[in-house]
Amino acid sequence: MSEQGYRVAVVGATGAVGTMMIKVLEERNFPVASIKALASSRSVGKKVPFRGKMITVEELTERSFDGVQLALFSAGATVSRRFAPMAARAGCVVVDNSSAFRMEPHIPLVVPEVNPNALQGHPGIIANPNCSTIQMVVALKPIQDAARIKRIVVTTFQAVSGTGQKAVFELEAQVQALLQGRPLPRAVYPHQIAFNCLPHIGAFLPTGYTEEEMKMVNETRKIFEDASIQVCATTVRVPVYYGHSESVAVETHQPLSVQEARDLLKKASGVVVVDDPAQNEYPMPLNAAGRDETFVGRLRKDFSVENGLVMWIVADNIRKGAATNAVQIAEILVKQGLLRVP
Amino acid sequence: MSEQGYRVAVVGATGAVGTMMIKVLEERNFPVASIKALASSRSVGKKVPFRGKMITVEELTERSFDGVQLALFSAGATVSRRFAPMAARAGCVVVDNSSAFRMEPHIPLVVPEVNPNALQGHPGIIANPNCSTIQMVVALKPIQDAARIKRIVVTTFQAVSGTGQKAVFELEAQVQALLQGRPLPRAVYPHQIAFNCLPHIGAFLPTGYTEEEMKMVNETRKIFEDASIQVCATTVRVPVYYGHSESVAVETHQPLSVQEARDLLKKASGVVVVDDPAQNEYPMPLNAAGRDETFVGRLRKDFSVENGLVMWIVADNIRKGAATNAVQIAEILVKQGLLRVP
Repeated sequence: MSEQGYRVAVVGATGAVGTMMIKVLEERNFPVASIKALASSRSVGKKVPFRGKMITVEELTERSFDGVQLALFSAGATVSRRFAPMAARAGCVVVDNSSAFRMEPHIPLVVPEVNPNALQGHPGIIANPNCSTIQMVVALKPIQDAARIKRIVVTTFQAVSGTGQKAVFELEAQVQALLQGRPLPRAVYPHQIAFNCLPHIGAFLPTGYTEEEMKMVNETRKIFEDASIQVCATTVRVPVYYGHSESVAVETHQPLSVQEARDLLKKASGVVVVDDPAQNEYPMPLNAAGRDETFVGRLRKDFSVENGLVMWIVADNIRKGAATNAVQIAEILVKQGLLRVP
Repeated sequence: MSEQGYRVAVVGATGAVGTMMIKVLEERNFPVASIKALASSRSVGKKVPFRGKMITVEELTERSFDGVQLALFSAGATVSRRFAPMAARAGCVVVDNSSAFRMEPHIPLVVPEVNPNALQGHPGIIANPNCSTIQMVVALKPIQDAARIKRIVVTTFQAVSGTGQKAVFELEAQVQALLQGRPLPRAVYPHQIAFNCLPHIGAFLPTGYTEEEMKMVNETRKIFEDASIQVCATTVRVPVYYGHSESVAVETHQPLSVQEARDLLKKASGVVVVDDPAQNEYPMPLNAAGRDETFVGRLRKDFSVENGLVMWIVADNIRKGAATNAVQIAEILVKQGLLRVP
């Protein structure tokens, strides 16, 4: 790399995740020589802050990646399918936050704490997993290494920010309307989300599962490189702004005591154990918001099965669930010399 | 019974459940000759409505049950432990909504749709199960009958009204304070509940489980009269006013297809199947509030285990989870001639 670092582009720079990607690049002092904020023509001219300056958003075009070495994409699967291969052909390495390439066999699907080696020999595009998968595999990595996972039963409590900035506004507007007795605004979700729970994230499939639920099944297997892991997922939207929570029952092939699991989790990369029930200490979305780590608590033995553990996993879905994980992938690319030298 | 019906007392008449018990007695046209609203001295003189009249709350004393044939208790375990045996000795039949007697072997623990026969030979006190248990066993009863349940993994999304009226006020006050930028009131829960999730209902036990979680384990076994049923529960408070939701993965001894389960659930007493994902139809706490049935949806095969089903169960925790179930028990007592004839 040059002394100044890499020429970086962020695609979808005005969205909830894109904005955070730029913020996290700055926070983690990623070696950025120049940064391009790219978005659709609708957002051209908007400004986003980076290192004390305001960057003007440019329109994403076929020529946007000329001379760019790293591009972080978070503008949806359609945009990624069209522009990520283009960027890769231009010699740029893409870390893509959409679902477009996650399950393609030759595309690495990476969580830095879990499978950094999958980056070796990447074809120019690397997929960032789904938010609800990332925090789960970070917490389960030491369990998988120590006792091999047989089956996971997971139920999620997912924040509205996972849907995007417009859903954050919708929850806030609904709460205000309810308090003031005004008619409820409703555009993002099919039902009121304020003071309600919607067991519906992503489209429904013929099996009755949602796309979000199947992401947790398929991505977990790919990241752990273990197709034998059984996953049953139920994903639910709750009236929380930031931070996904997950209730996880995990069954392992080998026995693992709660104390052993706790010790492993305390040493695990990216994990913070918050588990002192006597002091009312357990992970909560409110405390995880704005943090980059994955928080694990309510760790206990599952007495209902042989070799079972139960836990409660919380992380900021926009940070570790998206932007932070993408930037961490870029950091490893730099470290392992997998980014083109400028 | 006399032409006029029974002399009934409601203990804890000013609480969220007590108020609803009086309302449900009226709604279901329970044969009430006279009604006593009983509470602690603090509430004496307050008034509660019944059949278009206002009843003045009286202080609960040792003599409160003289001439009373049926008493519905919902004033906490301490009050029940002291006054329920007294009422029973006075010849009154007690339906107790507290946890005081639920696990006592000689006390029936009854959900009318599941184990009405447990009322036979009752000793004057009948226990109403915990809210989160009631709705789960109503939905699982046809599964248990058809395929025998081996293991249940349940995660709950519980409304603040389950904690009582003061928690309903706290959530509302917190939301208002947040919108107005005022300091947050916090008295009921150890942490902010607005826009947050607390994996903490009831006191923590040395195993790491909460009392609420163990109620779901122990009460389920007692109600189904099947100590072999394995239950792993995680109970979570969410910012919802009324209606508990439950994500339930159930493993059975015999195979049961989704279609068979659906057909059984459609015919099951007290159950309403709401399960048309293509039309965005699934149970939600917002729709269950104010209803007496248990709503089941998101029914699908659990591909992660042999003989597994997954579902989403929602009910009004103050109605079916407490008041309605207690009144339904009283209705069966009348029907089976198990109430003392006035």
